[in-house]
Amino acid sequence: MIQIIFLFSLLFLSEAAVQDFCVGDLTGPESPAGYSCKKAATVTVDDFVYSGLKMAGNTTNIISAAVTPAFSTQFPGVNGLGISMARLDLAPNGVIPMHTHPGASEVLVVVQGAILAGFISSANDVYVKKLNKGDIMVFPQGLLHFQINARGIPSIAFVSFSSPVPGLQILDFALFANNLPSALVEKTTFLDDATVKALKGVLGGTG
Amino acid sequence: MIQIIFLFSLLFLSEAAVQDFCVGDLTGPESPAGYSCKKAATVTVDDFVYSGLKMAGNTTNIISAAVTPAFSTQFPGVNGLGISMARLDLAPNGVIPMHTHPGASEVLVVVQGAILAGFISSANDVYVKKLNKGDIMVFPQGLLHFQINARGIPSIAFVSFSSPVPGLQILDFALFANNLPSALVEKTTFLDDATVKALKGVLGGTG
Amino acid sequence: MIQIIFLFSLLFLSEAAVQDFCVGDLTGPESPAGYSCKKAATVTVDDFVYSGLKMAGNTTNIISAAVTPAFSTQFPGVNGLGISMARLDLAPNGVIPMHTHPGASEVLVVVQGAILAGFISSANDVYVKKLNKGDIMVFPQGLLHFQINARGIPSIAFVSFSSPVPGLQILDFALFANNLPSALVEKTTFLDDATVKALKGVLGGTG
Amino acid sequence: MIQIIFLFSLLFLSEAAVQDFCVGDLTGPESPAGYSCKKAATVTVDDFVYSGLKMAGNTTNIISAAVTPAFSTQFPGVNGLGISMARLDLAPNGVIPMHTHPGASEVLVVVQGAILAGFISSANDVYVKKLNKGDIMVFPQGLLHFQINARGIPSIAFVSFSSPVPGLQILDFALFANNLPSALVEKTTFLDDATVKALKGVLGGTG
Amino acid sequence: MIQIIFLFSLLFLSEAAVQDFCVGDLTGPESPAGYSCKKAATVTVDDFVYSGLKMAGNTTNIISAAVTPAFSTQFPGVNGLGISMARLDLAPNGVIPMHTHPGASEVLVVVQGAILAGFISSANDVYVKKLNKGDIMVFPQGLLHFQINARGIPSIAFVSFSSPVPGLQILDFALFANNLPSALVEKTTFLDDATVKALKGVLGGTG
Amino acid sequence: MIQIIFLFSLLFLSEAAVQDFCVGDLTGPESPAGYSCKKAATVTVDDFVYSGLKMAGNTTNIISAAVTPAFSTQFPGVNGLGISMARLDLAPNGVIPMHTHPGASEVLVVVQGAILAGFISSANDVYVKKLNKGDIMVFPQGLLHFQINARGIPSIAFVSFSSPVPGLQILDFALFANNLPSALVEKTTFLDDATVKALKGVLGGTG
Repeated sequence: MIQIIFLFSLLFLSEAAVQDFCVGDLTGPESPAGYSCKKAATVTVDDFVYSGLKMAGNTTNIISAAVTPAFSTQFPGVNGLGISMARLDLAPNGVIPMHTHPGASEVLVVVQGAILAGFISSANDVYVKKLNKGDIMVFPQGLLHFQINARGIPSIAFVSFSSPVPGLQILDFALFANNLPSALVEKTTFLDDATVKALKGVLGGTG
Repeated sequence: MIQIIFLFSLLFLSEAAVQDFCVGDLTGPESPAGYSCKKAATVTVDDFVYSGLKMAGNTTNIISAAVTPAFSTQFPGVNGLGISMARLDLAPNGVIPMHTHPGASEVLVVVQGAILAGFISSANDVYVKKLNKGDIMVFPQGLLHFQINARGIPSIAFVSFSSPVPGLQILDFALFANNLPSALVEKTTFLDDATVKALKGVLGGTG
Repeated sequence: MIQIIFLFSLLFLSEAAVQDFCVGDLTGPESPAGYSCKKAATVTVDDFVYSGLKMAGNTTNIISAAVTPAFSTQFPGVNGLGISMARLDLAPNGVIPMHTHPGASEVLVVVQGAILAGFISSANDVYVKKLNKGDIMVFPQGLLHFQINARGIPSIAFVSFSSPVPGLQILDFALFANNLPSALVEKTTFLDDATVKALKGVLGGTG
Repeated sequence: MIQIIFLFSLLFLSEAAVQDFCVGDLTGPESPAGYSCKKAATVTVDDFVYSGLKMAGNTTNIISAAVTPAFSTQFPGVNGLGISMARLDLAPNGVIPMHTHPGASEVLVVVQGAILAGFISSANDVYVKKLNKGDIMVFPQGLLHFQINARGIPSIAFVSFSSPVPGLQILDFALFANNLPSALVEKTTFLDDATVKALKGVLGGTG
Repeated sequence: MIQIIFLFSLLFLSEAAVQDFCVGDLTGPESPAGYSCKKAATVTVDDFVYSGLKMAGNTTNIISAAVTPAFSTQFPGVNGLGISMARLDLAPNGVIPMHTHPGASEVLVVVQGAILAGFISSANDVYVKKLNKGDIMVFPQGLLHFQINARGIPSIAFVSFSSPVPGLQILDFALFANNLPSALVEKTTFLDDATVKALKGVLGGTG
Repeated sequence: MIQIIFLFSLLFLSEAAVQDFCVGDLTGPESPAGYSCKKAATVTVDDFVYSGLKMAGNTTNIISAAVTPAFSTQFPGVNGLGISMARLDLAPNGVIPMHTHPGASEVLVVVQGAILAGFISSANDVYVKKLNKGDIMVFPQGLLHFQINARGIPSIAFVSFSSPVPGLQILDFALFANNLPSALVEKTTFLDDATVKALKGVLGGTG
């Protein structure tokens, strides 16, 4: 009996030294490494499970598609663990427009339908492929890529990222959904004024 | 016309500096950072796509389950990109036995059936939950964890890892499927000789 | 004289930019990168020195051994510095049972007696060796390993880790010293009910 | 004398253990961590010095600007050291068009003239500022950014990157200077067919 | 219109998940990864721009030179981004004395005058070169190096670092500008007592 | 029986994906991440064990001390694992002179005698302490530090590093044991010509 107590004092020491995980406390200070850690005593299994990717995202929008993220903000259990996920829903005409993840590589698995996916390298080479159910594809960090429904039925993919905060920069929103002056957009993209203003109109940009 | 040529000379310079990715060349020397890079000129989209997770793994075995990896050895496109995947198939009685990934955290998404999954922390706390289709769960790096079919139908999950070489150490195989002398197994696990020898018998271990 | 003052104003700027170290403040918020930093003005040499490994750990317990950690919780000076230590004491029959460090590789040096040490790889290969005084051995991150007294006298080793928070998951405690239901232990380890319940009894587990 | 010899035998041991740097050998195998290291015995100071940024880049092109890189391909001395540089030359009407560096953050210093620089965050917020000589600006990793001559004289900046292989993806070249089919460009960018085909014409794209 | 609203709800989700940058809040807790992040809503372009390197540093001092840092303390915009800068001013006789940056590699570009720069490797090899305007040189992390005016006019360089907190340890100040007892300095440097005391006198050291 | 075969085919797949370790092959190409990996099939336990720290280093030299490294060059088993060791022997008057490790933090444990150890921060603050047997001390990466025998008997310490290639730059050897011209040493250290030439004489430097 006494031996067990001695043994457990060993365990308690060990317990005190643990930082197996750092469930994000969204109310605490953030550091460059992520959110502050929730107090260990309050962590439960529910911190490591997320059901927000269960339901299809709403695809009634101009892209007929939805990205539902499970990054550390939505799913604080991944904070500090070097990984996160998202769900892609593409209606029959759906497209996830040209975008990048500034902070992570991505791997995609098709679980319903088919998806035409591609990315473009720094050397401007194009890598495009039609992915069927069960196919996976990797998109290297920071490169422009896209996904398009490639079969006339709702298609679904799960994507995983090599960071809990991959970021998501959608090209058209970066260019046309803010107050970046049209003259600057035109000068830095070679697009003409009419095109820029039309897209600003559709996407809610000003200036 | 001349201007375009000048511009392209800029591009070629840029192209020469690229290391957006490093598709693994399994025949070249390995470094601690992974496989050597395949020559850029020979890389095609097929290096970034893998179809090996499309088919169910064979679950006619003692665990009624299969792990099909898409690590950098099977899927050299992920080499150096900080991510990889695997597919889990669990027959109605299937179980992925207690195991660890020494080199990566894992996130799992259930795409068919239901799975009872859990992990144990360094503090010996247990985190177990039944996951239904669409639920995701994260398993912090290096901790013992398991997955069990939780519904009487074949269940499937895709798992992603925060490394292209996560490793996989299945507890029973580490203890009972090699030539680690029974006396050492017993001394370091508190298991009795009969148990150790029986499991060595089942799993092919010697000594 | 004035020149020295100018020179020191340079120094003070430089001083303000320092983050050579980040002695852990155990009362502040934790981040995935470790504890908050103690205010620089309050740091003294005693923050970088630890005497807790001076005395033998208490080996009057069922493993006849002790692990005394100097991780960032016990020794906040290593916080953020990528390194930590521990002391192993093994009585004549002592054994550090099968365990892993989820977050670090380990290097061990024998300073008294002799130790039989080993680890098992993901490929289930076994690497075992008797280490005498002055021998060192490295254990790659996250792999199961153990140490056993290999000479009939108290043996001592110092171990160092490639992280200030290496973690420590002792197999038997992970399986048998908590409330993980016996049925789950059995299903995920192939152990029989009697064995599981007996070990739970010894190690204080329930369920 | 003998003492000095003993001392130098210490030094030689130390010398053998050195990996202070790893000057890139562009003919050897590449790894995800960079080029192979040139043999230490052949390394000279000239490996650490680069004069390729001394001369202005040729700005007689459609952007009236030039990016001259000193990445590890041009300047193998930075291989493995986490840093690299480039020179920007902007003729009076020059613009470095919208682009990203998938693998690095960037800091820019204006050394002649004035530059209007800006970046767009994942939240689509715009950060734009006119920079005069001596001003510096930082561009976080992977985000779209641009630089425009802001004064009627040739302007020059040096930029540094947090990686020896930052990559460079120029938006217009990624979209219009390759064989990515026009239909895919249009579908993923919302641009109309006429715009896409016109820009493909200017930039040399096909399809 | 409704579609746009749906689309923007997607954007807002995305926005919540952003950690593109982490502008340092110098009043919050520090972690090993750097300063706490300023609240995103209060970040402006001015956080990413710094004008403190615009003016020459004061070189009226015993080294006839000045180092003006733009590390994360002076320029919180670089916090967490893996990069920072500084400006070197060398009067005609100026010298940046032997020093190291414990936490970063450095790349230097000469923008006025000429500089004789050098570093010494762990193998005690010397790499010295005269750099003219536009030349760049890289100094691997942690190694002793120096810069000397090599032309009879004020010379200027910008240096960049592979960390926002590179640190700066100037040899003479480390040895002679503090209270490290002269006996210890002598014993650990082989310098004689007169030399040590003279330099302590000049540099303000005691003991 | 057939089941076991199926199970083992699972294991073989897993085996192929392993990169638990990367024992250094000193004859292969080096990368910034370390030596090439020895072929897995040729790795034995002896690759993970090193006996070179068993014997005292030769202290019959001008520092009456010896540093015996177990870095990846001497002990290729640590290649890629983020850790290494060395042994310090100090005769009664022994001193490990002022030095840095450009690539690693260090933790030291005294195993015989007593040692006066200290380091100096970027802010020029001094942290010195007498360490007795069993005491440990941490030295943050890249900072100048030293160790002196503090008791009239041979003293021994084991030191561990947070990198397999920590580097070792001994101040006096960096300044006086090579061909760095005396004039440059003097100009960058404030030492006078007589001192520099005398130390060059003792340490074998030229110029």
